[in-house]
Amino acid sequence: MPAPLTLTVEPLTRAAFREFGDVIETDGADSFPINEGTTTRYHDLASVDVAAQGGAPLISIFRGLARPAPIEIRMMEHHPLGTQAFYPLRNHAYLVVVAPRGAVVGPGDLRAFRAAGDQGVNYHRGVWHHPLLVLRDNHDFLVVDRGGDGDNCVEHHFGAEQGIALLDV
Amino acid sequence: MPAPLTLTVEPLTRAAFREFGDVIETDGADSFPINEGTTTRYHDLASVDVAAQGGAPLISIFRGLARPAPIEIRMMEHHPLGTQAFYPLRNHAYLVVVAPRGAVVGPGDLRAFRAAGDQGVNYHRGVWHHPLLVLRDNHDFLVVDRGGDGDNCVEHHFGAEQGIALLDV
Repeated sequence: MPAPLTLTVEPLTRAAFREFGDVIETDGADSFPINEGTTTRYHDLASVDVAAQGGAPLISIFRGLARPAPIEIRMMEHHPLGTQAFYPLRNHAYLVVVAPRGAVVGPGDLRAFRAAGDQGVNYHRGVWHHPLLVLRDNHDFLVVDRGGDGDNCVEHHFGAEQGIALLDV
Repeated sequence: MPAPLTLTVEPLTRAAFREFGDVIETDGADSFPINEGTTTRYHDLASVDVAAQGGAPLISIFRGLARPAPIEIRMMEHHPLGTQAFYPLRNHAYLVVVAPRGAVVGPGDLRAFRAAGDQGVNYHRGVWHHPLLVLRDNHDFLVVDRGGDGDNCVEHHFGAEQGIALLDV
């Protein structure tokens, strides 16, 4: 088995994340005043795409537990039928690990990002991502993803010939 | 003009809010473990209904400013084509004012609720509600509502014969 690959953790920006999905944040977003000026609407921050094969949007809350450091990345998943958006409900940083769309994925394909507590992400359809990686126990996220029939989760567990990746945070 | 009506502010519970929409909260929700037990999914907490007339879900952030006390309720609005969900991004209480579906609405029809900072709401289609009422400046909410063509906002400003309502908080 190859030696574990340690991933560099990059800051999360719209430009760096464009290939993988949307960064949901107010900085740099289109906005306008509503409600007689008492509210600012930062408008349409993510491309929600969940209607394939009769799908419909779900709103859920995910509560994450921290994993021991260094975090081991041994698998990735993607959702062929729908986007999946996460927004943190408390202002704590968290980690995002993604890889480009494609039939195969391995440690060498991964990109790791540190998301600030006021940044959400929306994984586009088919983009490989690791399940939720929080840095504090009981970190909650509002999640908007797809409900409906069809097989909407593809997992790939790295084989012995691929090895694993590490996040030293 | 009738004297202002001061509304009693009730705690927000699913039972009390059922006529108006969903309370988005983990307490009492269906949940199950995912991601090898590192995440709990509190599943499908709101009935998102935004597909009428070719509509699609939007994810936005609303940033609210507090209004001076006592808060004056002079109008209500509703969205005939879609639900609208709000979830607070910081753990501060806020206020929700609603009234039953119907052609007309006045101060005597209103119900006021105090939502905790870990409770969201999803107004059902056609349910009268007041625009965002926060208790601290720059309180942010993640909002899931409808984008698309069609007239999806109906406002009713109370006439002089109706008067206004007050929230003394």
